[in-house]
Amino acid sequence: MKNIIQVGIIMGSQSDLIIMKEAADILTKLEIGFELQIVSAHRTPELMFDYAKNATDRGLKVIIAGAGGAAHLPGMVASLTPLPVIGVPIKSSNSIDGWDSVLSILQMPNGVPVATVALNAAQNAGILAAQIIGSSNLDVQKRVSAFKEELKVKVNKSNEDLEGSF
Amino acid sequence: MKNIIQVGIIMGSQSDLIIMKEAADILTKLEIGFELQIVSAHRTPELMFDYAKNATDRGLKVIIAGAGGAAHLPGMVASLTPLPVIGVPIKSSNSIDGWDSVLSILQMPNGVPVATVALNAAQNAGILAAQIIGSSNLDVQKRVSAFKEELKVKVNKSNEDLEGSF
Amino acid sequence: MKNIIQVGIIMGSQSDLIIMKEAADILTKLEIGFELQIVSAHRTPELMFDYAKNATDRGLKVIIAGAGGAAHLPGMVASLTPLPVIGVPIKSSNSIDGWDSVLSILQMPNGVPVATVALNAAQNAGILAAQIIGSSNLDVQKRVSAFKEELKVKVNKSNEDLEGSF
Amino acid sequence: MKNIIQVGIIMGSQSDLIIMKEAADILTKLEIGFELQIVSAHRTPELMFDYAKNATDRGLKVIIAGAGGAAHLPGMVASLTPLPVIGVPIKSSNSIDGWDSVLSILQMPNGVPVATVALNAAQNAGILAAQIIGSSNLDVQKRVSAFKEELKVKVNKSNEDLEGSF
Amino acid sequence: MKNIIQVGIIMGSQSDLIIMKEAADILTKLEIGFELQIVSAHRTPELMFDYAKNATDRGLKVIIAGAGGAAHLPGMVASLTPLPVIGVPIKSSNSIDGWDSVLSILQMPNGVPVATVALNAAQNAGILAAQIIGSSNLDVQKRVSAFKEELKVKVNKSNEDLEGSF
Amino acid sequence: MKNIIQVGIIMGSQSDLIIMKEAADILTKLEIGFELQIVSAHRTPELMFDYAKNATDRGLKVIIAGAGGAAHLPGMVASLTPLPVIGVPIKSSNSIDGWDSVLSILQMPNGVPVATVALNAAQNAGILAAQIIGSSNLDVQKRVSAFKEELKVKVNKSNEDLEGSF
Amino acid sequence: MKNIIQVGIIMGSQSDLIIMKEAADILTKLEIGFELQIVSAHRTPELMFDYAKNATDRGLKVIIAGAGGAAHLPGMVASLTPLPVIGVPIKSSNSIDGWDSVLSILQMPNGVPVATVALNAAQNAGILAAQIIGSSNLDVQKRVSAFKEELKVKVNKSNEDLEGSF
Amino acid sequence: MKNIIQVGIIMGSQSDLIIMKEAADILTKLEIGFELQIVSAHRTPELMFDYAKNATDRGLKVIIAGAGGAAHLPGMVASLTPLPVIGVPIKSSNSIDGWDSVLSILQMPNGVPVATVALNAAQNAGILAAQIIGSSNLDVQKRVSAFKEELKVKVNKSNEDLEGSF
Repeated sequence: MKNIIQVGIIMGSQSDLIIMKEAADILTKLEIGFELQIVSAHRTPELMFDYAKNATDRGLKVIIAGAGGAAHLPGMVASLTPLPVIGVPIKSSNSIDGWDSVLSILQMPNGVPVATVALNAAQNAGILAAQIIGSSNLDVQKRVSAFKEELKVKVNKSNEDLEGSF
Repeated sequence: MKNIIQVGIIMGSQSDLIIMKEAADILTKLEIGFELQIVSAHRTPELMFDYAKNATDRGLKVIIAGAGGAAHLPGMVASLTPLPVIGVPIKSSNSIDGWDSVLSILQMPNGVPVATVALNAAQNAGILAAQIIGSSNLDVQKRVSAFKEELKVKVNKSNEDLEGSF
Repeated sequence: MKNIIQVGIIMGSQSDLIIMKEAADILTKLEIGFELQIVSAHRTPELMFDYAKNATDRGLKVIIAGAGGAAHLPGMVASLTPLPVIGVPIKSSNSIDGWDSVLSILQMPNGVPVATVALNAAQNAGILAAQIIGSSNLDVQKRVSAFKEELKVKVNKSNEDLEGSF
Repeated sequence: MKNIIQVGIIMGSQSDLIIMKEAADILTKLEIGFELQIVSAHRTPELMFDYAKNATDRGLKVIIAGAGGAAHLPGMVASLTPLPVIGVPIKSSNSIDGWDSVLSILQMPNGVPVATVALNAAQNAGILAAQIIGSSNLDVQKRVSAFKEELKVKVNKSNEDLEGSF
Repeated sequence: MKNIIQVGIIMGSQSDLIIMKEAADILTKLEIGFELQIVSAHRTPELMFDYAKNATDRGLKVIIAGAGGAAHLPGMVASLTPLPVIGVPIKSSNSIDGWDSVLSILQMPNGVPVATVALNAAQNAGILAAQIIGSSNLDVQKRVSAFKEELKVKVNKSNEDLEGSF
Repeated sequence: MKNIIQVGIIMGSQSDLIIMKEAADILTKLEIGFELQIVSAHRTPELMFDYAKNATDRGLKVIIAGAGGAAHLPGMVASLTPLPVIGVPIKSSNSIDGWDSVLSILQMPNGVPVATVALNAAQNAGILAAQIIGSSNLDVQKRVSAFKEELKVKVNKSNEDLEGSF
Repeated sequence: MKNIIQVGIIMGSQSDLIIMKEAADILTKLEIGFELQIVSAHRTPELMFDYAKNATDRGLKVIIAGAGGAAHLPGMVASLTPLPVIGVPIKSSNSIDGWDSVLSILQMPNGVPVATVALNAAQNAGILAAQIIGSSNLDVQKRVSAFKEELKVKVNKSNEDLEGSF
Repeated sequence: MKNIIQVGIIMGSQSDLIIMKEAADILTKLEIGFELQIVSAHRTPELMFDYAKNATDRGLKVIIAGAGGAAHLPGMVASLTPLPVIGVPIKSSNSIDGWDSVLSILQMPNGVPVATVALNAAQNAGILAAQIIGSSNLDVQKRVSAFKEELKVKVNKSNEDLEGSF
């Protein structure tokens, strides 16, 4: 059975897909339904408006928006919906080391927050979306906890591999 | 009737209170119960551990953590709970223009996101917490939407004041 | 006789007025008609949409947009109009030294330029608007040239004052 | 029939040509006549002076100037002509991440604006030149609008390609 | 005979090993016993707690901790032990040019210092550990002095190679 | 009885004293003998040479060096002694936000580490010196541990003060 | 007897005088003749051209040029004269922390160097001018050496004042 | 006939030679005698002391010093000689984008200037040395002027190549 769509993943450009699909992958793993679409703040502003305005009616619970350079997509979507919006700064070509996307997503004015994650950290955006859904859904929260346990197991495995090397 | 406590607001130092109380104020306005406490990652690491570990059992849905300088509190709490953690970078004295707290909260590794808001933006942290709770609670979501309407009204009021000045 | 309105000056917040009125002052001096309004990308996105969409029909030739922090107003307006848009990065409180507004206005993606001026340089935005209008209007171009002559005169006057001091 | 030359594209060094020809390409596409030349502020200051001083007499309406490092060409040309000057910061070898060219073009003093575009964004410089000319020429403005429509079409096409992948 | 273990080398991730083994190499050369382990602040917080809490009882004299991005390991360990902790900022992938790890290790609050070395400078961390042990152990201090003499010899050798080339 | 002098505190300029005396204060509190002197790398290079060269013979165990701007004192002293050298970057007037002193102390080449602490963090330099001495002196290590306990007590006291305010 | 004028001190704006007069003061002390004038690259480009072109004929040996923001004066003068040009970056109002003037003076392209000194360091510009003149004039070189001796004496005096305080 | 040695070129490490030999090449072209040597501030501090102290007696007129990271060589040499010292910041491996070497060479305190050139700009250091010598030697000054003429010729040649391409 397909999971019901709770997370909308959008990005400013097709070139962002290589980063943003990590959000899709982790949501798949955590069994949370999502949709994925290119919505550009600057090239398709009307589409962005409609997407953000209709998000609650379409049943979305969280929106993940990734963009690079002067990255306005996450903040503009956040201005148009009461849903929590997670912003993924992407280090695009001609970016000034990623500072442009980080600052234009993070530094939102009072009243309109964007939940910003690290540069290129689409996987973390997916995990954060799961944590948000999990804060009122114990099943999802348990899957998040289980995922964190896996992280520990990997560290322990690495240490076993290391033993004897030094 | 007192609202049930859903949001834990913590901060690394008493000097952060002047910033972090804006999170408390907006949650009060949005009728969401919260608690507020000083929990220092570096001075009270055991307290931080206990706070984070017990947060779900105590019924919290979101944690807001503010800290300055090498700001480890939000990330460390995020490593110890499946709840969504919102980080507020604070520009403390001797900060290097706030870059230190921004980067040490934002740039979390894969697996452990922190939902970072703008420098000193504790009000936005409170609104984001409300949006997270609101994503599964229509009453709260409506109060968030109403708050956003107020922002518009203020802009319109400003424009009426402006008219005729130029 | 009132000058016909050719330049729209907008800004994200009333607190930007202290900076942005320098654009108004220089346009007054250069005898170019303008209007001035608060239009917030994040608090009044619909107003921003309407403003930008109707700008050509209302006869505007240039738009000057000032904003601070994650400054999306200039870029979003530029995405919604074929007019040249001049962006003024404003160093707001809680800005990270102005870098946030500079980068979120300057670093626009291919296809949607914003003519960015220096931090807080609303006067230069006004002059640039006059230069744009002047590029097809010799009267205005002459007034720009005359203004530049005044700058020289001031330097020469300063040197006369200096003489003899050292 | 060759288009009348309205835009002068200049750059500080032959190595900038790989970037700056994108300005030429988009102007060709938008059917706006241009000329293209190497004019170095530091190696050919007299040539720069003459170029800027004679630009209006030669019928230019806009000048696009690209330069890297301590990039003085756009600002110096702006000081010598009443025309609008568009500056393209170029990330040259030995640049400090592009910050040097961005800041030395953008941060012009009061009285002498440069319309700065993003790092390496010569295409946007060309579009901005077209917008400036289009602000008093409806045919050109329509071509700018049509170009923006193309951007939308490409996003929609990308979304069709995406469908079914996730 | 194996040297007694006096230095604990830990790092946040297996990918840090390529950098951190330079600390191990120089300690081997300086005949100081060490151990090496992966201890992640964010993925294995309990392990980190135990490691830091038991360090003095296990006879360690110095801890070297390397980490990238929002690098909390050195500071958190420093909060849990009275031993001197040396922090090695690592430039990981998706780092913002290394600034994130540098600032999140260096900018510790009053009361909890981390002895920070240069970006990726694990060799220097090893030398600093030797200098710390050497400050109360003349044999080790002599080996440090001898190592510094070797550095001079290499420079002199380079100059002999240079002679005659220019 | 006066404590035996184990720590040399030096600084590049008298104006650094207001910061550097915090190192002296914490060492006094931790009962560790120290001396304090102005030694400028650039104005008194010979004095610096002699100070560093004779430090071991004079019985010093650790050197704390504070300096601002192009801060060469910590690194140069480290090149002339096998003792551990702690560097305190100081934000002097005309500093570029402290970045100059941080980077010129931290980024030492392989072979010559400086144990760098946070901007202006002279207290932490003093604590680190105590931790270094304490790593081979249990009495000092206990005093460090006791100091850390005091930090916890202060946090707990702050929380008691907070209770009831919100 | 008035000293023969060997150094030309110029600056972009009267507001730079408060910084630049420190160059004049130290040259007076070192008995080197100078002249001082406001020459703006952007407001008086022709004056700048003439000044630079005629500098050798007028007998100048060194030019000191101070400017803030997008500081083109030192580099442009250097392009127009074979004399050594010393650049003083000035932290003007609306500067982005001084980075703009530092980078636009320092990062000159191959072929046209500017001898850049620290932010606001007009005194050092004066000393450097004296060192340049002194490299072929032993009397001046001796005065430079004597000045450096004075710096030592001041440090020693400070240490005498310190003695007994700690 | 070999030119008399007037310029000392030194650098902190053999790995800097690939950059620094551009200074040697341009001095050869301008017929100015030089010597070239590795002198490390941190690995051979005594050698550096001797080199700087004896520079005037050995007949040097200018010293060019290149170094990367925490680059102390130019500033320390400047503290030990009355000669003008030109600093070349080098972007070494593990540099933080070159900022470390730029700031630790440029930001010298009052009294001890270093004539800093752009990142990796050893050619410009050589030209500046020639300009310094040329300020009291007309033959050298003429060769500098001739070199600048060559730069113009190259630009003109580039423009001839360009003609017809667009």
